[in-house]
Parts: sequence; C-alpha cells; structure tokens
Amino acid sequence: MDSEYHLDDLIQALATPRGRSAIAVMRVSGPGCIEAIARVFSRPDVLKKSEGYRVHHGWILDENGGRVDEVLVTVFRVPSSYTGQESAEISCHGGPAVVDRLMELLRTIGFRDAAPGEFTFRAFSLGKMDLTRAEAVREIIDARTDRARALAVSRLAGSVKSVIDEVKDAVKHQAAVASLALDYPEDEAEPVPFDSELIRVSRDSLMNLIQTWRTGRLYRDGLKVTFAGPANAGKSSLFNLFLREERSIVTERPGTTRDWVEAWVSLDGIPLQLIDTAGLRRETDDPIEVEGIRRTRELLAGSDLVVAVADGTEGPAAAVALEREEMTVLSEGAGIAEDPSQTGDRLIRVWNKSDISPEAPEGWIPVSALTGTGFSELEEEIRSRALGGGAAPEADAPVIDSARQKDLLERAVSALDRFSDGVGLGENAPVDLLAEDLHEALDALGELTGTVTRTDVLNTLFSEFCVGK
Amino acid sequence: MDSEYHLDDLIQALATPRGRSAIAVMRVSGPGCIEAIARVFSRPDVLKKSEGYRVHHGWILDENGGRVDEVLVTVFRVPSSYTGQESAEISCHGGPAVVDRLMELLRTIGFRDAAPGEFTFRAFSLGKMDLTRAEAVREIIDARTDRARALAVSRLAGSVKSVIDEVKDAVKHQAAVASLALDYPEDEAEPVPFDSELIRVSRDSLMNLIQTWRTGRLYRDGLKVTFAGPANAGKSSLFNLFLREERSIVTERPGTTRDWVEAWVSLDGIPLQLIDTAGLRRETDDPIEVEGIRRTRELLAGSDLVVAVADGTEGPAAAVALEREEMTVLSEGAGIAEDPSQTGDRLIRVWNKSDISPEAPEGWIPVSALTGTGFSELEEEIRSRALGGGAAPEADAPVIDSARQKDLLERAVSALDRFSDGVGLGENAPVDLLAEDLHEALDALGELTGTVTRTDVLNTLFSEFCVGK
Repeated sequence: MDSEYHLDDLIQALATPRGRSAIAVMRVSGPGCIEAIARVFSRPDVLKKSEGYRVHHGWILDENGGRVDEVLVTVFRVPSSYTGQESAEISCHGGPAVVDRLMELLRTIGFRDAAPGEFTFRAFSLGKMDLTRAEAVREIIDARTDRARALAVSRLAGSVKSVIDEVKDAVKHQAAVASLALDYPEDEAEPVPFDSELIRVSRDSLMNLIQTWRTGRLYRDGLKVTFAGPANAGKSSLFNLFLREERSIVTERPGTTRDWVEAWVSLDGIPLQLIDTAGLRRETDDPIEVEGIRRTRELLAGSDLVVAVADGTEGPAAAVALEREEMTVLSEGAGIAEDPSQTGDRLIRVWNKSDISPEAPEGWIPVSALTGTGFSELEEEIRSRALGGGAAPEADAPVIDSARQKDLLERAVSALDRFSDGVGLGENAPVDLLAEDLHEALDALGELTGTVTRTDVLNTLFSEFCVGK
Repeated sequence: MDSEYHLDDLIQALATPRGRSAIAVMRVSGPGCIEAIARVFSRPDVLKKSEGYRVHHGWILDENGGRVDEVLVTVFRVPSSYTGQESAEISCHGGPAVVDRLMELLRTIGFRDAAPGEFTFRAFSLGKMDLTRAEAVREIIDARTDRARALAVSRLAGSVKSVIDEVKDAVKHQAAVASLALDYPEDEAEPVPFDSELIRVSRDSLMNLIQTWRTGRLYRDGLKVTFAGPANAGKSSLFNLFLREERSIVTERPGTTRDWVEAWVSLDGIPLQLIDTAGLRRETDDPIEVEGIRRTRELLAGSDLVVAVADGTEGPAAAVALEREEMTVLSEGAGIAEDPSQTGDRLIRVWNKSDISPEAPEGWIPVSALTGTGFSELEEEIRSRALGGGAAPEADAPVIDSARQKDLLERAVSALDRFSDGVGLGENAPVDLLAEDLHEALDALGELTGTVTRTDVLNTLFSEFCVGK
C-alpha cells in the first residue's frame, strides 16, 4: 500500500457531503485518538474513560478555551469499530464554517486528513473485512437504483465471499492431498486419490459467479438507450412518457447544447440513461448542423440500445428506410460499442402513433406515446435485451460487478480446468504440476478476497473510494 | 404553529446533505419512535431496551426481511435529546439509493417527512431551548466565516439569552412593585418605591445589545465591495491580490456574463463579497455596452463600499475626475443603498501603481497591486469602515444579528423609556400606566426568547431552517 497509509497515524475526514445541513459528521481513527479528542472536548475525563458505542454531549473548545461548536462525540474502542482501531465520530452543526474550523483544530492536535478510502483500507488491513466486502462498501454508496443497492448490500453481507470461501476450502483440501502424495512418493504406483467431482462442483460455482458479472455491471452502470428517428416521429413524447412512468433518478438537461436531452430512469432497478436526440437527418451544409449530425451518429454508435422511432402514419416504407439508416449507423459505430457482434440486437423498432396508423410491420413494436398503448411491451423488450433474456437476479443473490473480481475468477477457473485435465491422465498425472494448478487457483481466489495482496491493486481499489470512508 | 406541526407525529429527515459520501445520517423523533425503528432493525430487543446515548450496530431490514443497509442506530431517551423527545439517529452508507430506500421504508412504518426546522421547533416547544438559541442554531449553519460561526456559537451557548433574562428579572421585580401599589391603594399618598436606577441599567443593557446588531449583520451577511475605475487602473490586479492574501471562501466566476467577476473573501472574519467590474466608462452607442454600463452603475449603487481605483501614473487630475464620477453614481444610486446619508462614506480612494507614480493626493491611499505596498492600509480602511470605527467584537460577546430580535429589543427599550418618564412625575405618576409599560417590555422580551409566542413569527422563523434540523 501507498507509503502515506501508515496505520498508526491519527486520521480525520468529513464523512458527510459538504454543504448546509442539520448536522455534519467528522470521523477520526488511530491509536490514541480518543485521548487526542479529549484535549479539545469540554468533558475530557468522560471521553477518556468512555466505553465504546457511547455518545457524549459537550463542546469542542479551541486553544484558548473558546467554544467551536456544540457536538455529540461517539466513542469506538478496539476492535469494535469500522476500522478495527480506536475511533470516534464528531457530530457537529452542518455548516461549512464549523467543519472548516473543526478540521483545522484537529490538524493542530496531530490529526492528518485521511486519503480516499483510508478508513476502509484500515478495516481491510486489520482483518475487519475482506476485499469483496470492502468493494461492496463503495458499490453501495455508488448505487444508482435500489436494486443495485440491494445487490451491493448482499455482497457486503458476504454473499460473494461465502461462495469463494467454500471453493477455497475444497481446493485447499485437494492441495493437501497433492502434498501428501509428493511427500510420500512410495505410494506413487497408485493414482493420487483426488476428488475430481469436488473440483468440478467448485469450478461450476466460480463459473456461475463469472456469469453474474454482466448483470452486476448492468445494475451498477446502467444502459445507454438512445432514441432515434425523424423529428416528427414522436421521440420526445416517448422520452417524456418514460420520465412520467418510470422513477426518474436524475434529470440533466444541459443548457449549453441543443443537440440532445438526457435523463436517468430506473426500469425495475436497471438504471437507464435515456437520450433523446435532435433527430437531424436531412442533408445540410450548415456547419453547426453538420456537427450536430456527427454527434448524434456518435451517440447512436456508443449506445447499448437504440430505439428507432418510426412515424406509423407514414406507412411501412418509412419504417424500412429508417431501419436501414439506423442499421448503417450502428454497424459503422460497432467499433465504439462494447460488443460489435450484437449490432442487430442493439436496435429496438418502435411503430409510434399506432392508435392512428396502419398495422405495424413484422418486428416493429406498435406504441402510442399519446395513449400509452404498447408502452409496457416496449419496456419488456428493453428489459429482456438488457438481461440477455435471463431473469432479474434475486436481491440477495451473489452477483459480482467488479472487473477485478471477474478476471481473478477466470484465472481460478483456468487453473482448475488444467487440474481436471491433468487428473484425467490417471496414473500418468504429473502430481507436481497438478499441485501448482491448485495453488494458482488458491492464489487467484486469495487475491480476490485480499488474503494475497498486491500493492498496486490495493492502491487502485481504495483510491476510488470517497474521502471519509 | 402550523397545524402540520403535531408534536406527537413520528417525523424523519435526512440530516446530512444529499450526495455520495462515507455516511449519511437519518434523524427521527417522536413518542414511540424507538419501538417503531426496532420493527425494521435486525436486533429489535436490544434497541427497545436501550438506554439513551447508546449506539447499536445492525441491519435495517425491509418488509420481507431483505437487508436494506448495515447501520449504526443511536438512541436518545426523554428528555436528553435534541428535541426533548424520544429520538434516534440512523447512520447508514452515504449513497442516495440507500437514503431513498430507508426514507421510503420509514414512511411505510408510520414516519412522515419533517418540515424545515421541525426538530428545532420541537426542542423549542418542549423547553429545550429559547428562541435566541434556536435562531443561533440556524445562524451557526449559515455562517460564512469563522468569526460569524463564533458569534452564533456564543448565542447558542446563551450569551444573548442571559442578558435578556437578567433584564427580565429586574423588570418583573418592578412590575411586582407596581402590582402591590395597585392592590393596596391606601398607600397611594407615598410615591411608589420603584427602582429607577435598576430600570435604567436594564434599559442600557438592551441598548448595548441593539447596538451590536449592525456588527452582527456585518459578520453574518458580509459587505459588498465593488472595485470601480478605468480599465487600465489595475482593478483586477487588486482584486486578485485580495484572493491571494485573504482566505477565499467561495469563488464564483459566472461564465455567461463578462460584466463582472465576483469572489467571497474573509477579512478578519468579515465576509467580503468582492466585485470586479468591467470598468466601462467611455461613451458608446453599442446596445450591449450600454447595458453593461447600466449594470455596472447599478452594482456600484447597491454596494456597501466602492473602491475607486485610480491609475496613479496619470496624475492627480485623473483621480479627481474619477472621484467626481463615482460620487455622482453613488449619490444617484443612494436610493438603492441601505443608508443614503453615507454616500461619501461608501467611497474608498485607491491610488494604484504608487511605486511608479507621483505622490498620492490628499484622501487617496497609495497602493501598489504589483508589489503589495499599501495593501494592509487598504484592508485597515475597509475594516474600519465596516465596523464603523469600532473594534471587532470578542468571539464570545453577546451580539445579535436577527432583525426580529432588534425590533423586539427596541420595543422593550421604548416601553422602559416611557416607564422612566412616568416615574419622573413622582407622586403624580400614573401607576396603572407604568405597570402597563413594564408588561409591554416583558411581552417584547418574552416574544424575543419565545415565552410569549406568536404563530406567524414562529412559522417564519422555523421555515428558514434546513430540513433535518
């Protein structure tokens, strides 16, 4: 870990967002931090003698005994604290001037500002949580929708860790079998009694976890869904229907550009980033419009899904032309998109104004943005494409969303596959190499939960936390 | 108070600002709120049996037993809580999705969202704090500088209330004397034994408080200081010198207008809103420039202080012309300014580029924005004008900044003045009217601390609080 991260330093951070509010909470941690805080607290002895999980009312006083603020101080003792160290939380009035003065005062008595994620790093270093749970802490805070929160909370509760721990136990047991065989080569005539079935089951558990990654990412990062089509097709009406019907998370309407409008909504907990493009299609020489068209095409190419909205009243020919156009843009931009093989799968065809139009052509979803008819079919289509046809995960299912975890799981699976292949050779199985395969799998899983640590990985992981966590 | 403000309702609010952060704190209050929270807490019995000032670790669970978040719950029992009621604080992960889900869940078990200031209103209603201290809570949160915070903290600690209480005691005593005289009119031949000296001293205490109002407002709202003068005089260099030398609070540079640049700095705890104008002075027909000039003049007219920056190298004649110009603008705009009589006092004359200029004319402060020479003299001039020549208040001095408090103090002083005039009549003093004067003073002071309450006043006062306080 970074050399700045000395576990014995007294660290402090504002644990709540800056801004005017009822209260703000300062968090401090480190050996002796209660004694230090007591020096600026109006009831020092009470604080020093306090047990953990106790709250004390009083005033923070400056060097001259002047009142800084009326506060509540919560005391945490080893090991029952977030970091595992002696810690405290100071709950003060939520004013920026108060927070600034408090932080300044704490600096003068030996506290330094904590780095992002430093409290959680301490918790990890002192064995309070493994890396899958540490990552879950950040993921809970970053969750865009309630389902994303639920999946991250389930990871925090240990759903992923318990799968990994079970596999680790199985692999360790087989590694012990290999050790024994290597230590007592006299038995070499007999095939080593490996439990291939156990390793197969373990390998499948890991594969199942790997397969949750796509879903985990979906709930974490969401899906970019862009509306395309001619200006009169009713894209904006459809866009607004989503804002009305779905729970709108954040609505951003950049005032500086007229090119597109953007909003986040939640579709059964899947965050959708909806983008309503200006629908520029006509040939033009105006450099501003040309630039607008270029940006719209870029947007479409970079979208996870494109909803092509045809004006049903214009008849099937218009729909076919639109489809051809969008498919061209999508295949052009396939290089930008995540999965170029799915160019066609990214297009959803909407036959708008279905209430006053002839019947929709094959493959087009009839929708009336005006009456709302067909809207739930459109939602279902988006949901189904998003989940790749699968079902939404249970809220407490073990689901991973970290690329780091996925890569390590894949490393473990490869090692277990090599092991199984080797065991398949029967008497000729090279036991020393099989043992190596098992240790390779254990290393990958150890790195995943953090029992095997790599400084660079830890630095990256914790630097993504907010300060105060 | 507003009919929405039932003291027995279970209320909830997010007490920390919205946003991604290490933790967020939900605050709840109301009779039975601990029992209610226990229904969604993983360790209900622990919570129900908990004493006050205890913290409990656990999970908030939804209707189906699903984990919402890992939390710390702090229990407060009657009367040792902020509101004086049974209360709790739930410290959860600082993610918007967590906070939304928690608030939603609490609503389903009987909590309603608190109105702004409702927690403090309960504290006031249940006798936990008088109105001067309730107002101080908001003022601490709103404080722009450390000095403003210190003055508000001193009010919270009771500095203003103790002055008022002392005066109230004295006035009550005299009111009792008047009562006695009215009840036993047989003694009417003797003059009623009022203690005029006591009332005079009380009246002076109140006057002293009234006189702190200007200072209180100064530290609370700050001073608008606009730099004016020709484009080449070095206004921006001076402006930037302030940003470098003083502690910059918030720097706002509106990107949409080129008319002026604005920044807040703290001058010994006085918040200064510095405005650097474009310095448009020349005659023009361009409608955009005309509009710019109009806005600059409006800014100057609405400023508390105008720093006229002359280019010293252009000699005294240029300074005289500039002074005349600014005085004209200031007197034109006097209607907008707070105190029209002080037109001249609002102008500070700076002789910039003093390092390469002839000597400054009488009344001009020689400054070199380049070398920094004369900068502290300019600061001193601003500070002196701001404080009206007086000294800065001690951090723990009783200082008021509320217009409401000032008006009530003035009402009390008038009543006491009428009383003193009446007592001066000796034997002919109309005791019944004198008694009324004393009660009028007591009413005003009672309204100030909140023992006499007026619904409309309370509504206004508490609606200015943030939600959760």
